[in-house]
Amino acid sequence: MSATIIDGRAMARRIQAAVAAEAAELARAGWAPRLVSLSVGATAAAELYVRNQRRQAAAAGIGFEARDYPATISAEELGGVIAGLNADPRVHGIVIQRPLPAAIPVRALQRAIHPLKDVEGLHPASIGNIVYDDLALGPCTARAAVEILRALPLDPAGLEVTVIGHSELVGKPVAFLLMGLGATVTVCHALSREVAAHARRADAVFVAVGRPGLVTAEMLKPGAALIDIGINRVETPEGPRLVGDADFETCAEVAGWITPVPGGVGPVTVAMLMQNAVRATRMQMERYRGAYAGGQ
Amino acid sequence: MSATIIDGRAMARRIQAAVAAEAAELARAGWAPRLVSLSVGATAAAELYVRNQRRQAAAAGIGFEARDYPATISAEELGGVIAGLNADPRVHGIVIQRPLPAAIPVRALQRAIHPLKDVEGLHPASIGNIVYDDLALGPCTARAAVEILRALPLDPAGLEVTVIGHSELVGKPVAFLLMGLGATVTVCHALSREVAAHARRADAVFVAVGRPGLVTAEMLKPGAALIDIGINRVETPEGPRLVGDADFETCAEVAGWITPVPGGVGPVTVAMLMQNAVRATRMQMERYRGAYAGGQ
Repeated sequence: MSATIIDGRAMARRIQAAVAAEAAELARAGWAPRLVSLSVGATAAAELYVRNQRRQAAAAGIGFEARDYPATISAEELGGVIAGLNADPRVHGIVIQRPLPAAIPVRALQRAIHPLKDVEGLHPASIGNIVYDDLALGPCTARAAVEILRALPLDPAGLEVTVIGHSELVGKPVAFLLMGLGATVTVCHALSREVAAHARRADAVFVAVGRPGLVTAEMLKPGAALIDIGINRVETPEGPRLVGDADFETCAEVAGWITPVPGGVGPVTVAMLMQNAVRATRMQMERYRGAYAGGQ
Repeated sequence: MSATIIDGRAMARRIQAAVAAEAAELARAGWAPRLVSLSVGATAAAELYVRNQRRQAAAAGIGFEARDYPATISAEELGGVIAGLNADPRVHGIVIQRPLPAAIPVRALQRAIHPLKDVEGLHPASIGNIVYDDLALGPCTARAAVEILRALPLDPAGLEVTVIGHSELVGKPVAFLLMGLGATVTVCHALSREVAAHARRADAVFVAVGRPGLVTAEMLKPGAALIDIGINRVETPEGPRLVGDADFETCAEVAGWITPVPGGVGPVTVAMLMQNAVRATRMQMERYRGAYAGGQ
């Protein structure tokens, strides 16, 4: 038995095509979507993200301005930058690239972004909305992982799903989104006693921990879907390499479907960011028209 | 084997004492906490809630004004009422009594309440904050159920917990709060295939569905904690009676701890509302001082 390898890049291209059409329509209405990315203290990981985002934005016809700040910038200065971007009608979305220097309180910055410009979907109000099944601007990585499941020939209603990792940026939002689809969801994490047993009885396993080789073939039910959200940089004799949280080679022999790393959840995540960008732009357009154009 | 019956009223009194001390301190600072309750179209259920809230508010030294509106009031008029209460510095919390007439969009009203006056903890921003483990104003019923678990001699870290019911007001928030404590959480609901199996392997079961007799003794692991959040009005030969979602008599023979209905989660929920009331008042006092008194 050998798993179907899910092509995240192809899926991202399909989403991108729809996003591009919507971006063009917004541009014709005078609302060409535009993102601003904030990086602090150049890191290789952040540069990789920025490059991928810039490429997908260009493909979708979305403006993308990447700003780099030195690692010495203060949280107050960054807060001022965000306040300026919140007030700037030519900016429709703000992306804070991770990792940030330890001295910068990333959560406070995320909260400072206006909810309508929160294209990463990480503001508490955005997270709260997905609990209410209101998916205006959901967190991109979690939405990407769940979109991949939805593209499989599995009915999410009543599906037994185990989520390994309960971070607030990924694991928890994945869990709520799955609950919203009617799945029976178990969330495991570092303190869980029986992760393997929970994984083995699941029809689908999501893993987002950041530990290479965490999920092995013995932890999977034959035919299960394995959505690997981890991205880890490991050193190999051939140089550095990106891998997920699953032991891909062995898991692919047991799973029914599996996402590769890279090329699985990652590209779909960037596509979700672009989808959020057009949604955010549309919401701002409607808010603006409601406020200034006689309630239209 | 016979379960320890958890005394929610005694627990509520303990919480209430701490709340009363804090309310008195706020009153001395010129910020006596005050709630306004909005009921629409008199219903027996809402009247019961209002009565309990009024009594606990009085015991805690919190002002409580109950307003009744006719069932014919429009959503726009109610929105106007809420806007007025948001702007009134003498009002620190707004409670919307359920049920509301079907024509009133309760969720939109909940969103209209200023997050700092959202003492029920149901605004999307409040819900999102608990995902981020920021418990400023959490939803009262979910917080009450989890407080009860925390009072038991069980370590929540690594605890296997099954939550039956995934409503956005109760089941989902219970799940996030438990995740925040390190529990391994499975959330089941109407579409789940194996609720009994999930319940039976759990160290603690939370049920919030609204169906009498849903949880039976056969669904429990001996010694497990059973937190029954359901409140159902059933007719008996002796007249109407309130029961939970568990078959109390048989479950009490298997469980290690069990909450009765009434007298379990209910009184603690009202105590949480009062705790939120003093927290909300304090946050508003600090916001006011920050804005108008030189950043103190």
